[in-house]
Amino acid sequence: MIDVGFLSYLEGPLIKVDQKMMSRVEGYHPDLTAALEHLVNSGGKRIRPIVTLLMGSLLGAEEESLISLSASIEMLHTATLVHDDLIDGALLRRGNPTLNSHWTAAATVLTGDHIFAQAAMLAAELDNTEAMRLFAETLSIIVNGEISQLFGRNHLPSRDDYYHRIYEKTGSLFALSARAAALISPADRKYIQPAEAFGTEIGKAFQIVDDVLDFTGDQARVGKPIGNDLRQGTPTLPAIYYGEQHPEDEVLLACLEGSVSETEADELILRINQSGVIERALNDAKECAKNAVQNLREFPVGREKDSLEKLGIYIIDRDL
Amino acid sequence: MIDVGFLSYLEGPLIKVDQKMMSRVEGYHPDLTAALEHLVNSGGKRIRPIVTLLMGSLLGAEEESLISLSASIEMLHTATLVHDDLIDGALLRRGNPTLNSHWTAAATVLTGDHIFAQAAMLAAELDNTEAMRLFAETLSIIVNGEISQLFGRNHLPSRDDYYHRIYEKTGSLFALSARAAALISPADRKYIQPAEAFGTEIGKAFQIVDDVLDFTGDQARVGKPIGNDLRQGTPTLPAIYYGEQHPEDEVLLACLEGSVSETEADELILRINQSGVIERALNDAKECAKNAVQNLREFPVGREKDSLEKLGIYIIDRDL
Repeated sequence: MIDVGFLSYLEGPLIKVDQKMMSRVEGYHPDLTAALEHLVNSGGKRIRPIVTLLMGSLLGAEEESLISLSASIEMLHTATLVHDDLIDGALLRRGNPTLNSHWTAAATVLTGDHIFAQAAMLAAELDNTEAMRLFAETLSIIVNGEISQLFGRNHLPSRDDYYHRIYEKTGSLFALSARAAALISPADRKYIQPAEAFGTEIGKAFQIVDDVLDFTGDQARVGKPIGNDLRQGTPTLPAIYYGEQHPEDEVLLACLEGSVSETEADELILRINQSGVIERALNDAKECAKNAVQNLREFPVGREKDSLEKLGIYIIDRDL
Repeated sequence: MIDVGFLSYLEGPLIKVDQKMMSRVEGYHPDLTAALEHLVNSGGKRIRPIVTLLMGSLLGAEEESLISLSASIEMLHTATLVHDDLIDGALLRRGNPTLNSHWTAAATVLTGDHIFAQAAMLAAELDNTEAMRLFAETLSIIVNGEISQLFGRNHLPSRDDYYHRIYEKTGSLFALSARAAALISPADRKYIQPAEAFGTEIGKAFQIVDDVLDFTGDQARVGKPIGNDLRQGTPTLPAIYYGEQHPEDEVLLACLEGSVSETEADELILRINQSGVIERALNDAKECAKNAVQNLREFPVGREKDSLEKLGIYIIDRDL
């Protein structure tokens, strides 16, 4: 799961995070356990647990609590993916068939609910009301984001709308990963706000890169067809920049409304890829990563701080 | 919402519970807010809040906390109903069209998730880690019950299986309603376990009566077609008793497998209604209600204790 040297010392704790997650999905109906094991093992990069472990260790939190927190956040993330797949009707996720491509909607909904419940129980292990409240608030932010997206499809949003949406979708959970780690640490409370800001910005960088990879990656590696978001009616930063530059290209809006052929969509995605907007979007991601690191100025020095600083570069470079 | 005189003094607090719930569903996308308002106002009897308010007041808990707790539990209940409707494909619930009969699956899933998140945020207002952990555990029990039911359809369970299932489905949330009320009260901890036992038993009584009403009620009042559970492949106590008494009636198993005509199902439901099993099931409900009250022996005397004792009779007699 970790493929970069500067994080190799996290291998032990990350294995414990996986074990903690697996301990929550064993002993149910065999089909459910199999599906849960598949979900938990389906090759996520555990980037949120990495943020939690680094931030928490830097601020002196206990490893056991950080592992519960990491597992809780990763399960919350997994639960939202399960329901998201039902909503998107996406047939591939991380290169694996999604749950709902071979399960009924009912089983998919309940599997997501089950993982939500297990995530909440792991959060409860922290015995920290502030962290638990934060957990509930973050779930609320994520779901509200999905609802806005569902109701607001089929038009080209502004850049501000986009940034708000990726905060809801991704930044908020990275913010939780970092803020809750600071909360459960014995360190001064002055670190809580900048920890959260670090998480928010690194999360936004992560999501922008994800949205870029949707245009540039190949289907086998990314696990989704190229330009999938746009084909599904969800415009991301490259499409927004392209729309600003090419208001005359009517295929873009038609694509968002779902009224173009596969070939027209293919050609549009090619035009977007060749228009220079990919580089602009990546520059934005770099800016977010730089802003993230700025928040660490006053933090104690140490190996974990170095790793948090390198994380931004790692996030930008992954798979590109 | 309260139609019995012995609970009229709860009208004020119950209005505050509704206001608390409504405060959590305002300010979203207009369609979502409308759907949420509809769900929150759709005529539930607020029986779980009644248990919480009575138990908590009897043990000296603060009204404000009891209102947050009640609203949280009622929203958790509402969220499970929303996802349940998606699973059952039920077109009527409480006499009103269910969300998914005019919404997409995506909107229904997200609406349920949104209500879960709001329920968790209300639970967080209690600032009590034990109550929050209990809340997460109860969600887990309810979802596991739904999953077992989903995978275990189409056969006739034992009475023990049935009792286990109604604990998961209903008893657990009533148990939470009573236990968490005791937890957040300043009273001695010796009351926590009997409060939970009261909730569990009263919840089981409530569910048995619900299952009986599915056979005896009329569609307009109950909000579902007669014998709906059985038609959907879910056998409840009357069907289980009937199956024990009439192992020769092959239509029952065929009905659970979904391989009977509407007329055959109608006739089966008539046979069940006329076989005396309704009375047996109601006797079981009365037994649960009696067991519930036994747990209150050592509780302080007071108006609320009297009401908790009467609640069992109220639950048995409702709508029959």
